[in-house]
Amino acid sequence: MTQSHSRMHRLGDIVAKLGGELLGAPDIEIRRLATLESAGPGDLSFLSSAKYLDRLRDTRASAVVLGKAQRAATKLPRILCDDPYVYYARAAQLLNPDERPAPGIHPQAVVEAGAQVPESVALGPFCHVGRGARLGERVVVGPGCVIGEDAQIGEDGRLGPSVTIYPRCVIGKRVLIHAGAVIGADGFGLAPQAGRWIKIPQTGRVVVGDDVEIGANTTIDRGALDDTVIEDGVKLDNQIQIGHNVRIGAHTAMAACAGVAGSTRIGQHCAIGGAARIMGHIEIADHVTVTATTFVTKSIRSPGTYTAVLPAEPGREWARTIAHLRGLERLSKRVGELEKGSKPSAKKRKRRK
Amino acid sequence: MTQSHSRMHRLGDIVAKLGGELLGAPDIEIRRLATLESAGPGDLSFLSSAKYLDRLRDTRASAVVLGKAQRAATKLPRILCDDPYVYYARAAQLLNPDERPAPGIHPQAVVEAGAQVPESVALGPFCHVGRGARLGERVVVGPGCVIGEDAQIGEDGRLGPSVTIYPRCVIGKRVLIHAGAVIGADGFGLAPQAGRWIKIPQTGRVVVGDDVEIGANTTIDRGALDDTVIEDGVKLDNQIQIGHNVRIGAHTAMAACAGVAGSTRIGQHCAIGGAARIMGHIEIADHVTVTATTFVTKSIRSPGTYTAVLPAEPGREWARTIAHLRGLERLSKRVGELEKGSKPSAKKRKRRK
Amino acid sequence: MTQSHSRMHRLGDIVAKLGGELLGAPDIEIRRLATLESAGPGDLSFLSSAKYLDRLRDTRASAVVLGKAQRAATKLPRILCDDPYVYYARAAQLLNPDERPAPGIHPQAVVEAGAQVPESVALGPFCHVGRGARLGERVVVGPGCVIGEDAQIGEDGRLGPSVTIYPRCVIGKRVLIHAGAVIGADGFGLAPQAGRWIKIPQTGRVVVGDDVEIGANTTIDRGALDDTVIEDGVKLDNQIQIGHNVRIGAHTAMAACAGVAGSTRIGQHCAIGGAARIMGHIEIADHVTVTATTFVTKSIRSPGTYTAVLPAEPGREWARTIAHLRGLERLSKRVGELEKGSKPSAKKRKRRK
Repeated sequence: MTQSHSRMHRLGDIVAKLGGELLGAPDIEIRRLATLESAGPGDLSFLSSAKYLDRLRDTRASAVVLGKAQRAATKLPRILCDDPYVYYARAAQLLNPDERPAPGIHPQAVVEAGAQVPESVALGPFCHVGRGARLGERVVVGPGCVIGEDAQIGEDGRLGPSVTIYPRCVIGKRVLIHAGAVIGADGFGLAPQAGRWIKIPQTGRVVVGDDVEIGANTTIDRGALDDTVIEDGVKLDNQIQIGHNVRIGAHTAMAACAGVAGSTRIGQHCAIGGAARIMGHIEIADHVTVTATTFVTKSIRSPGTYTAVLPAEPGREWARTIAHLRGLERLSKRVGELEKGSKPSAKKRKRRK
Repeated sequence: MTQSHSRMHRLGDIVAKLGGELLGAPDIEIRRLATLESAGPGDLSFLSSAKYLDRLRDTRASAVVLGKAQRAATKLPRILCDDPYVYYARAAQLLNPDERPAPGIHPQAVVEAGAQVPESVALGPFCHVGRGARLGERVVVGPGCVIGEDAQIGEDGRLGPSVTIYPRCVIGKRVLIHAGAVIGADGFGLAPQAGRWIKIPQTGRVVVGDDVEIGANTTIDRGALDDTVIEDGVKLDNQIQIGHNVRIGAHTAMAACAGVAGSTRIGQHCAIGGAARIMGHIEIADHVTVTATTFVTKSIRSPGTYTAVLPAEPGREWARTIAHLRGLERLSKRVGELEKGSKPSAKKRKRRK
Repeated sequence: MTQSHSRMHRLGDIVAKLGGELLGAPDIEIRRLATLESAGPGDLSFLSSAKYLDRLRDTRASAVVLGKAQRAATKLPRILCDDPYVYYARAAQLLNPDERPAPGIHPQAVVEAGAQVPESVALGPFCHVGRGARLGERVVVGPGCVIGEDAQIGEDGRLGPSVTIYPRCVIGKRVLIHAGAVIGADGFGLAPQAGRWIKIPQTGRVVVGDDVEIGANTTIDRGALDDTVIEDGVKLDNQIQIGHNVRIGAHTAMAACAGVAGSTRIGQHCAIGGAARIMGHIEIADHVTVTATTFVTKSIRSPGTYTAVLPAEPGREWARTIAHLRGLERLSKRVGELEKGSKPSAKKRKRRK
């Protein structure tokens, strides 16, 4: 099969470690997690939503994780819990523990004088660690990474291949950064003068908190004067762009291709949808959801969901919608003319108020 | 001139290899292809659309490729064929054959024990090939690529510089991947619990079919449990983002900056425009065209073109459009009032039904 | 503090070098620049807009840069000038001069035979310079860059880590390219034939002028036949995508995540907002501003601002807007019915004309 070699676990051991109520034999062997559809013998599956109940009926999984309310939804061996999706996440972590490579500095890595690389670090080939850079205990750095002068990476950090950390940036503990991400390149700071652009040196840093995840090819610019800050527990998907001097509040998650322009502050516990864009120099409150592809142009002061999504339509329907949109001015005038012409109804309207 | 050194070909040789009807001397020497505007002696050009007929009149090309219907459109030496654009593609392949570097493993590449790298492979400097990875015959890997443990690349594959293939991903035959692409980084799998995000290990793979092209800095996430699948002949432009567990059907093409959220299935022979976005967990039928920048929010069951494009307007016009759009509720109420007031016409409407 | 170690300057020296009128003691020591809010002793700050006058009142900066009209806005030591933001840019350049690494070819870089790398060049570890490539005087290349065969980089150019320059591309003088940028990968050239895509070899180049800046993970495709051209002084932010055969006019700036499809020509001195998209095969005049996220679908012949921004709204309001938008056809018919019914007013309308 297509999966990594998980170790074998017994169902009873899983429940002992992760909790939940076990209905079924505790010695059932579980080798991996799988969706209801693709599961087979040796697989543990889960029901994340009642709409998949028919899949539950047909699954060949050896056991399933269910919400407490679904106790009678199957006769399969099952674990009942509060939140099957969270349980699945925990079980997946249990069955697929991080495989850390053996510690050591690869002979084809270059570590400059004055850099701190503890013995517990695994530094891949073709990495360059600049003067004064400091890596925490047990940091794992994939091949081809560049860690600039005086940059810091906290303990248990993991960098995928070809990640760039520019000088003086600070990465917290247990941060996971995927391939090709660029942390701390210059912000886009230009002053216009006589038709030309004068570059403004970007002298701030990027400061990333603990337990942050940063997706592949995501870019986070260093601050112009002050720092760009990504607080604890923030999760950034792939190809996200964070401008200079942005601050992203703790435990906010942003889906792929989202972008935040310079100096904007996003609150804590926000959820920013894929390809959403957020204007510069504004503030977003805590607990705000922005839907995918939406453009936020001004500050948002209250929690809630904000959107401006135009769903795709068949071409001909959309063409009519656009024509009507373009014709709104005329339509509005026609209504005005009618109102002038229909005096009685106009009077009636006034009387009602 | 600015072009690579094509070898010289005679017009007759080109027709012998690629077909078409030659009107003109077969011994005319052709050194390169060029647009009608920039062509000069020694260049073969082509007329892809009747709207460029005036450029044909002025071209200095030594010969041109034309559709059969354009036989009399010029007196230049010419090749008549069914589809000049396809002919141009074929001729360009003939005149610009792939230059494969000499095979061999660069002394500054690192190949881990148990990796299979055939003698016909050209592995560039600063590449890292993980344990158990398998490269097919004649694969060319540019400098700085990282090929993870147990990953596979089929025969005649070509990787530009700094490409990352994460562990266990499978790349088909004759696949071309441009610089900076990242195949198989973790999907964005998070379970929310008590205001924090729990990471869901991503244990699936990316499986890429044969004859696929993947653009620069494009990212394709590995599956959460099952695989992310890119079928044969798919063409992905630059900076595309493909979420976990997506399946893209054979021969579908996606232009730059498009994005597909997790678990969505796109059919075969689709054309997805630049910066188009496709919601997660939906299905797109075969032969669907999505226009550039459009956001597809729900499944599409029928072939055709789908769109929601808002074309740019001069700022003042757009401001009025937006104001009218915002005023639609009021306008609608005003029309309702008028209808109430104009009883006769309301009656008339009913009578007609 | 968080900033790089600027050298100490005296206020009088700064004015001597950059101009402006000094009100205050010329021997005040300035160590760095800072915003009004974060400044402390030893810092020079600036007032870029009258809306920050309250911050000026509270600042702890040792001196400030002000517009001439603000002469009396503070009693702090101050420099009066025409454009405080430009002055700040110049002062920042003065206080934070580029730190060029010591010249030399790192022993773990690979330079192929026939490449020209002057002694004044600093070539980082794990760089690969192809046959025939030519680097100008004082070029600085970060770790892990790949410079293809016959590519050129003009004098005083600077490449961040992991930049790829594909073969034969030409980069001008004093060009700054940030990490992960890819210059000269294949354009997206495909000819459809019988349900498959035939690749069109991309034989043009990318030609970049002088004084250009290119952001992290930005991609610029090589031309299909002719070149893709980025003229002098163009500034491109991160994650921008430039298609093949595009030409971007001198001194145009594009914010992050913007994209330009193939063969489009953008004029000089344009400002393209973040995530704006520009259709292929069109022309944009000089001095055009395109707002962030706007999609330009056809040529723009006159200077000015062009937009189609839909600002985010609270979800419920947007749902109503969309419903009304979808209902426009019906609303329009209702107005038509009213017009038919209200003959008198229709007559009146005619009489007025």
